[in-house]
Amino acid sequence: MILGNDPILLTPGPLTTSLATKQAMLRDWGSWDAAFNAITATICRDLVDVVHGAATHVCVPLQGSGTFSVEAALANVVPRAGKVLVPQNGAYCHRILRILGYLGRAHAAIDIAEDRHPTGAMIDEALKADPAITHVALVHCETGTGILNPLPEIAEACARHGKGLIVDAMSSFGAIEIDVSRYPVDAVIAASGKCIEGVPGMGFVIARRDVLEKSQGNSHSLAMDLHDQWTYMQKTSQWRFTPPTHVVAAFRAALDQFLAEGGQPARGARYARNRDTLIDGMAALGFRTFLPRVVQAPVIITFHAPGDPAYAFKPFYEKVKARGYILYPGKLTQVETFRVGCIGAIDANEMRNVVSAVAESLKDMGVSKMEPLRAAA
Amino acid sequence: MILGNDPILLTPGPLTTSLATKQAMLRDWGSWDAAFNAITATICRDLVDVVHGAATHVCVPLQGSGTFSVEAALANVVPRAGKVLVPQNGAYCHRILRILGYLGRAHAAIDIAEDRHPTGAMIDEALKADPAITHVALVHCETGTGILNPLPEIAEACARHGKGLIVDAMSSFGAIEIDVSRYPVDAVIAASGKCIEGVPGMGFVIARRDVLEKSQGNSHSLAMDLHDQWTYMQKTSQWRFTPPTHVVAAFRAALDQFLAEGGQPARGARYARNRDTLIDGMAALGFRTFLPRVVQAPVIITFHAPGDPAYAFKPFYEKVKARGYILYPGKLTQVETFRVGCIGAIDANEMRNVVSAVAESLKDMGVSKMEPLRAAA
Repeated sequence: MILGNDPILLTPGPLTTSLATKQAMLRDWGSWDAAFNAITATICRDLVDVVHGAATHVCVPLQGSGTFSVEAALANVVPRAGKVLVPQNGAYCHRILRILGYLGRAHAAIDIAEDRHPTGAMIDEALKADPAITHVALVHCETGTGILNPLPEIAEACARHGKGLIVDAMSSFGAIEIDVSRYPVDAVIAASGKCIEGVPGMGFVIARRDVLEKSQGNSHSLAMDLHDQWTYMQKTSQWRFTPPTHVVAAFRAALDQFLAEGGQPARGARYARNRDTLIDGMAALGFRTFLPRVVQAPVIITFHAPGDPAYAFKPFYEKVKARGYILYPGKLTQVETFRVGCIGAIDANEMRNVVSAVAESLKDMGVSKMEPLRAAA
Repeated sequence: MILGNDPILLTPGPLTTSLATKQAMLRDWGSWDAAFNAITATICRDLVDVVHGAATHVCVPLQGSGTFSVEAALANVVPRAGKVLVPQNGAYCHRILRILGYLGRAHAAIDIAEDRHPTGAMIDEALKADPAITHVALVHCETGTGILNPLPEIAEACARHGKGLIVDAMSSFGAIEIDVSRYPVDAVIAASGKCIEGVPGMGFVIARRDVLEKSQGNSHSLAMDLHDQWTYMQKTSQWRFTPPTHVVAAFRAALDQFLAEGGQPARGARYARNRDTLIDGMAALGFRTFLPRVVQAPVIITFHAPGDPAYAFKPFYEKVKARGYILYPGKLTQVETFRVGCIGAIDANEMRNVVSAVAESLKDMGVSKMEPLRAAA
């Protein structure tokens, strides 16, 4: 699927894209031209359809990485006097809290262990205890560990209390079902270079139209003002500021392939096969996953590092890379781990191959004791 | 230079890039991988060299369009209690004022006609009259009209008063000389998809190291916090948040071609030949430029629209596009104009061809009266 002998990226975005997606970038587009604006319009329409939002939601694309869109969504959807509750079980939840600090929006966190997920009951309790909370911000799949947080039950809890819900769906969008017609969600955020398998460079916010309409004046930033971007786009069909034209064209190509594959159910099923093939193969080598299988999203898998003193991540990474696969470092502070993505234009065959590459690399390094070290107290 | 029969973009970014630049995007890069981080590092080094800043300045790249970097530079370089003076002669000066409004930074403008440029004497006078001003923000080449604002004399005026200077060099960087070793500049801002001839999707701020070091806590935004981006990059050699990897790889290829051509002097000379060929050819058809030649940057040319009632921009644009060239609409409110860019992977030959395309298109439309309409009073 890729050009020449480039390594396969087992990283959670940027990821390995198809050659057709990359070839869509072999053309220059005028950002004012009707042909380009038509591409933007169909992308927005198709993205809204992925979450079943055509009746209620609109899509606002935004330049930059996914974090730019997360910050923009929080700044625009939450009024300046709002207060945001964040169920906190990983690095990207922590990033949301950090953004809220910059924005000067009041916030509170429910601290949860990184291998556990929040529940509807936890949200119920927190909302009852603090009526000042106006919104909940949920990370759907926490890329820090790979855990899947239960969106439907969190959304139902928010609905019971009449609170808004903002979903960072960066790593889940297109792979795991999100259905805004079944439970209320104010905004769903994702980016081009994730499970739709485009190249990185743009994000998007799928917002409830009535929420977006009321958001004028909320933004702290001109560049990240989603209300202004959306209003301008409706008037002119253009982006306000120079769009990443090649990234947009590649994203259209990636969406075409996503739809041809069968949309979210098919994409999620392929990734689940990737996950299961990977975990089974690694388990046979003696690796243990950080998460129990039941909460493991089919996106990125955190493995405990072998406790063998001959193991170190950097040489391990280089040896696996020399065999054609790029791994991802761990993002946990308490235990030594590494991560392997199972998303991108790859299938179970690549998963079997990376397991072989890992086995050979460990043998090279003289690693035999697979039992992880205990976390420091 | 381009693929197939795609139209040539005579727009000031996105612009027509070389095939080699686009082909650099046919590979996926891991954003954590050392090979990719080395690309980022050499880009930053080469960009600092373009403005002769190696002894004093550092480059901080930023995801998003150029406007994201302009907003980031203003937010980071100007302390929250600062006040910014903006010599205002076009749309991008106006955008800076709008950003300062969002940021809550005090500001003042010197209003100048769109076909005139600010002078050192004007800055002297304004700084004398208002000692609260801490910084001047100058648009070097104002893309709204194509006028070149005289950076050296503005910089010298700022230096005389001990004020900071922020230069939006979006359309000039790489084409027009900027030399921060000859006059003090706090920050120079540009983007990938302009005169270096990369594809759009990232900007960069070349900031004085001592200014950047003191900027912690100034930013209103996590995503646009240049101090945080720079600090993280120094520690890890990585971007904080997912970089637009393909855009970065294309930018490296574009910089290689820029250096091979002979850097800024050679690039500026090619664009000047493009400008002169275009203006001479259009003058022979009866077109008049909005600006006097002496203040016309070799970047984008604003032409008065023909006063003939048979003329309208949209059909004119479509007819010229059918002949292979994408024009740009005017951005003036008082007079009817259109713009033609002379930057990108194009040379005087394309300029001669677009003049022919314009001549044929006007003939098709039955336009013969070239004298522009007078502006409404």
